[in-house]
Amino acid sequence: MSFVPNRLVERVQLPPIPQAWAWVDGLDFPADRPLLDVCQAVPGYPPPSDLTDHLARRVRDGSTAVYTDIAGLPELRQALARDIAARYRADVPADDIMIMAGCNQAFWNTMVALAGNGDQVILPSPWYFNHEMSLRMLGIEVAPLPFRADRAGVPDPEDARKLIGPRTRAIVLVSPNNPTGAVYPPDVLDAFFDLAREANCALVIDETYRDFLPADTAPHDLFARKDWGDTLVHLYSFSKVFCLTGYRVGAIATGEALRTSLIKVTDCVQICAPHIGQEAALYGLRHLDAWRTDNQEMMAGRAEALTRAFQRNDLTYDLVSAGAYFAFVRHSFGDEPSESVARRLATEHGLLCLPGSWFGPDQDAYLRFAFANLDQSVMPSIVERLVESQS
Amino acid sequence: MSFVPNRLVERVQLPPIPQAWAWVDGLDFPADRPLLDVCQAVPGYPPPSDLTDHLARRVRDGSTAVYTDIAGLPELRQALARDIAARYRADVPADDIMIMAGCNQAFWNTMVALAGNGDQVILPSPWYFNHEMSLRMLGIEVAPLPFRADRAGVPDPEDARKLIGPRTRAIVLVSPNNPTGAVYPPDVLDAFFDLAREANCALVIDETYRDFLPADTAPHDLFARKDWGDTLVHLYSFSKVFCLTGYRVGAIATGEALRTSLIKVTDCVQICAPHIGQEAALYGLRHLDAWRTDNQEMMAGRAEALTRAFQRNDLTYDLVSAGAYFAFVRHSFGDEPSESVARRLATEHGLLCLPGSWFGPDQDAYLRFAFANLDQSVMPSIVERLVESQS
Repeated sequence: MSFVPNRLVERVQLPPIPQAWAWVDGLDFPADRPLLDVCQAVPGYPPPSDLTDHLARRVRDGSTAVYTDIAGLPELRQALARDIAARYRADVPADDIMIMAGCNQAFWNTMVALAGNGDQVILPSPWYFNHEMSLRMLGIEVAPLPFRADRAGVPDPEDARKLIGPRTRAIVLVSPNNPTGAVYPPDVLDAFFDLAREANCALVIDETYRDFLPADTAPHDLFARKDWGDTLVHLYSFSKVFCLTGYRVGAIATGEALRTSLIKVTDCVQICAPHIGQEAALYGLRHLDAWRTDNQEMMAGRAEALTRAFQRNDLTYDLVSAGAYFAFVRHSFGDEPSESVARRLATEHGLLCLPGSWFGPDQDAYLRFAFANLDQSVMPSIVERLVESQS
Repeated sequence: MSFVPNRLVERVQLPPIPQAWAWVDGLDFPADRPLLDVCQAVPGYPPPSDLTDHLARRVRDGSTAVYTDIAGLPELRQALARDIAARYRADVPADDIMIMAGCNQAFWNTMVALAGNGDQVILPSPWYFNHEMSLRMLGIEVAPLPFRADRAGVPDPEDARKLIGPRTRAIVLVSPNNPTGAVYPPDVLDAFFDLAREANCALVIDETYRDFLPADTAPHDLFARKDWGDTLVHLYSFSKVFCLTGYRVGAIATGEALRTSLIKVTDCVQICAPHIGQEAALYGLRHLDAWRTDNQEMMAGRAEALTRAFQRNDLTYDLVSAGAYFAFVRHSFGDEPSESVARRLATEHGLLCLPGSWFGPDQDAYLRFAFANLDQSVMPSIVERLVESQS
């Protein structure tokens, strides 16, 4: 081409999910032995029909075809503030909520608002690949927080402390974690919060999968901390909980100082989150509590079924961690790169998962399973195909 | 707050539209003399009911609740490629189309893909404020292309030539222009294309308002140029033409080299444009040709009515340019800053327009009217209020 593109973007890897799909493109899988696709985290069931019936009414109202405020529909901000308050047992005002066009955009906009070229952000390894791609494109240095298999994937605040420098702008955590499924305990999150405050950087926690934790526990106590919004940036998604991936709607909860910057970034990137997606999220928060609880229980059942299926004596794969949506599995092929293992599982055994190497350095021993896509009854088949692949 | 935000974002102005609304917040306007709001470019009429009826059916189909490909629905890419081919009398393959979550995001993603911190982009002055805000946040230097009132607002390629340096990554044009309403003739766009190719930079043309040009003319001939996609980045929006502002759906047409980078950026920023918005755009392209033509004619009628209304001997405001959605007007208060004039028009005369100064340096003599928001019959009232303000 005749122009020079941004080298930072050129150097970033291609989006992983379509690459994984390409492995099985054109392959035939018999009806009695279908492809088991656990590569992308998408709910394996549609949104409830009372939600889509509601949307069918709302799209006929011309007012849903126009922009909302940059920060989102006031009713939705209010409803999410109440939901957070109830779940985290803390007082969170609607003003602290900004609605985003999905949680990827919530992360992107937060990073633009926090950090610029040459700044540094601490990211847990293995990472959610879009987080790392975003930072590299923006010229923000990624400092990998070491993977602690010895702590079942829970990162250590003391490891983070060693990485902090004068240009550290944020510590990013993901809990429940993508890709490992690890759930970070409240006291660990407390320690990270203290560290971030001490280091004058932000603590960004992506809690996309928090609705799949047991409903009777608060994921953490940080919203109850004094001036939490001066340190914490909470990222959230409506995609998984209400099966709205295609509607693109998520949220950020944080204090005023960062929100002023976020308003500017969001105006440029998006103007506002899609109006009808916001209507969908609002309906979900107002009317789908029972449905949400049912799905949480269903997802817990899937996690349990998968964990149980792994308890086979003839299996050489190890389940390192599992929770919410994901399982992180150590394969048994020694030095064989995880991409080669994953590809073989896909093409020869009809099991489409992602290689650990796509989630950061030193992850070649692992595979990620987005098990939540599949029914509980299918979990033994996943393990059956792993056993097959051993011979 | 306890963390240091990105100074580049901190320094950027706040989004302008909400600031203008704040001027009239809490003011009462009598029913027989309502506020005339020409500050934001939004269609003053809803989408047609056959479109919303179609969407009401589509939202009930669970498949519309999930992600699409990063580049968008294949059928929509195909339909837009055909629409461009017909309108511009050129052959454009569907592969060259990427669907975006609105044209602001099309611009943002294009800039990230093209330029990084310390690079330079040429922007026509006065500019669309979100363009300038985006570049400043990303650390990209803005080189203002001078406003040529003597050319009725059409920029001069020779002015651009003088600005080109080793780090120039793109020349940005907007035609029909926001904020001036100027329509750039095909031969001027040809000269800009040649200049960009010669300078090894991209020519980015935002054509959000192209559907409000007379339907029997091609806006330019660039899609017929050999290897157009190696130089041209065409930005488009479905927001105005099908009244879908709240659905967030737009597009980019460009060649493969930039698309590879755009796929990565879009995956991080958005994953994909909202699925149901893409369904809306697809319906529009397939079924709303006649409606689009009617609206183009209605909008031309509004432009004509406004132009006619300005032909009053007692008026000291000058209409500099008008087209598609916007009119650019020189006020008659000498050195009074345009923000002060606009604010007075809003609070004292119930006419909400935007000050020229919000669109870049040296624009304090001007005001922007997004006249397309109002019915043709209201145009004389706009001018009547301007006359009132003179005394």
